[in-house]
Amino acid sequence: MRGKLEPLQALVDADMRLVNQLIVERLDSPIHLIPELAGHLIAAGGKRVRPMLTLIAAQLCDYQGKRHLHLAAAVEFIHSATLLHDDVVDQSDLRRGLATANAIWGNKPSVLVGDFLFSRAFQLMVADGSLDVLRILSNASAVIAEGEVLQLMTANDTTSDEAAYMQVIEAKTAALFAAACRIGAVVADRPAAEEAALERFGSGFGIAFQLVDDVLDYSALQAELGKAVGDDFRDGKITLPVVLAIQRSDANERAFWQRCLEDQDQRGGDLEQAIEILQRREALADAMARARDYATSARQALDGFADGTVKSALLEVVDFCVDRDY
Amino acid sequence: MRGKLEPLQALVDADMRLVNQLIVERLDSPIHLIPELAGHLIAAGGKRVRPMLTLIAAQLCDYQGKRHLHLAAAVEFIHSATLLHDDVVDQSDLRRGLATANAIWGNKPSVLVGDFLFSRAFQLMVADGSLDVLRILSNASAVIAEGEVLQLMTANDTTSDEAAYMQVIEAKTAALFAAACRIGAVVADRPAAEEAALERFGSGFGIAFQLVDDVLDYSALQAELGKAVGDDFRDGKITLPVVLAIQRSDANERAFWQRCLEDQDQRGGDLEQAIEILQRREALADAMARARDYATSARQALDGFADGTVKSALLEVVDFCVDRDY
Repeated sequence: MRGKLEPLQALVDADMRLVNQLIVERLDSPIHLIPELAGHLIAAGGKRVRPMLTLIAAQLCDYQGKRHLHLAAAVEFIHSATLLHDDVVDQSDLRRGLATANAIWGNKPSVLVGDFLFSRAFQLMVADGSLDVLRILSNASAVIAEGEVLQLMTANDTTSDEAAYMQVIEAKTAALFAAACRIGAVVADRPAAEEAALERFGSGFGIAFQLVDDVLDYSALQAELGKAVGDDFRDGKITLPVVLAIQRSDANERAFWQRCLEDQDQRGGDLEQAIEILQRREALADAMARARDYATSARQALDGFADGTVKSALLEVVDFCVDRDY
Repeated sequence: MRGKLEPLQALVDADMRLVNQLIVERLDSPIHLIPELAGHLIAAGGKRVRPMLTLIAAQLCDYQGKRHLHLAAAVEFIHSATLLHDDVVDQSDLRRGLATANAIWGNKPSVLVGDFLFSRAFQLMVADGSLDVLRILSNASAVIAEGEVLQLMTANDTTSDEAAYMQVIEAKTAALFAAACRIGAVVADRPAAEEAALERFGSGFGIAFQLVDDVLDYSALQAELGKAVGDDFRDGKITLPVVLAIQRSDANERAFWQRCLEDQDQRGGDLEQAIEILQRREALADAMARARDYATSARQALDGFADGTVKSALLEVVDFCVDRDY
């Protein structure tokens, strides 16, 4: 049985429209390049997963006010700033051929507009006035930056292990998922135990989400559907599927991973061969199994919340995330 | 009569040692590249002007606690993040030959470590617990980012005018000077009029400081002393000396500025010729005169504060800034 996305989307739909309005309003600046560049990124239609988590967590906590809308916008601004900064390249090889903001406007404008978004996020939080929220999101921001730096340090290093991978995704992805959920409980003024439970939910869901994302980047099915795959491979990122495949490799395969990821010497057909090895070594299946374990923890974190449409929708969306073909 | 730096340095010396300790402590991270890269920048010995302003403003307001130390560290972190992001280049032409963090470690690590510093700044403010301070510094951060983007948009544009230049330096420099001073009054819980006066002081001083900095970048004397000059020229930045010289140029000179700054077609001897034109057209002298006007406004902003060693030291340092040979 597959989880569904729609029940949750329906629950947050009205709120998300207001969040989108706020985002557009708060992107505004007399320096026209800022709304232009940031608008390109934000309109490009991210899935808005993180602000959605703030909205639904607030609903789960029976919150009745409007503060969650502003904080959801702040969460999306932090995420957008991270994306802009993550796309900075040192060589101007825009190999993905995608129209990223960095590819269109260059590194420097993207970095500076990212800084603007980050500042705007804090302005939104300050206007909200909760030091707890400010603490949670400034801590998450510092952890995200640490995770991004660690990811950079482990890239192209085929001796990098599962522990390093987990540390990276806990920092760069799970921390903001966890914070986004937790602030839903903060605005609703719920007891510390509920804050902690929502944080655990967000963290488990974030790890599962990133694991699946990393599996899908090697998905033959995604490639057949015309979706982009192989970004991590081209960047030499050491994600869990690769860590598992390297653990299980023979000498030939080890040489293959070293050439492709460490030496960054990639040729036509290499991605296809990588996918073939990952499938044969069951690295994709096992990474998906790991994702399902984290999804289970996330689900369990919600045990203390009353059953109802909101909780069901959250459980469904977790299932949806991990029950995907790859 | 020349102003002096020493009286102010003596007054803040003990506090600044504590701020430096805090900076080192708060730079720490298990991700060793972070303290390494950030430490390189911060140890490289900036003048610590901005945190010094927070310290001295707090002293001027008779503040007796320790909060200003943490906030001075936060101010320096924001400034350091800005420097790291400002050094991002789109072509990897490390033409200045300086060992900037970006030149050593690359753009991306510098950007991510800048994000870490920015987050740490907000963590320090959150730990301090004043929403007023958070508001002042998050507003300043957003304005700085806008100023940096505007500077990028006006670079290489020889039709860019004095108004655009003033807008850039008010945002990228004066906003943080003003905020750094203002929070000195906030921690001391002084009336709004004193906060506003210190903000005006910081703003006027910041503009004067940046104007002088921009003049010194074309200083024959600095060049003789072996200091780096010509960075703005090589970057095609349209600073006030250039704006004034272009206003006063004949056809030959206009063609020269267009070739060097707009087309970025620079040859040996061009910087020397630029300096010669700027001197002949009295552009450097007039920009310095403008700096002195802003310094006067800054001094006047302190009229309401009681005379004494702290106020005298502040007035001296403003004089020191603008009474320099170039």
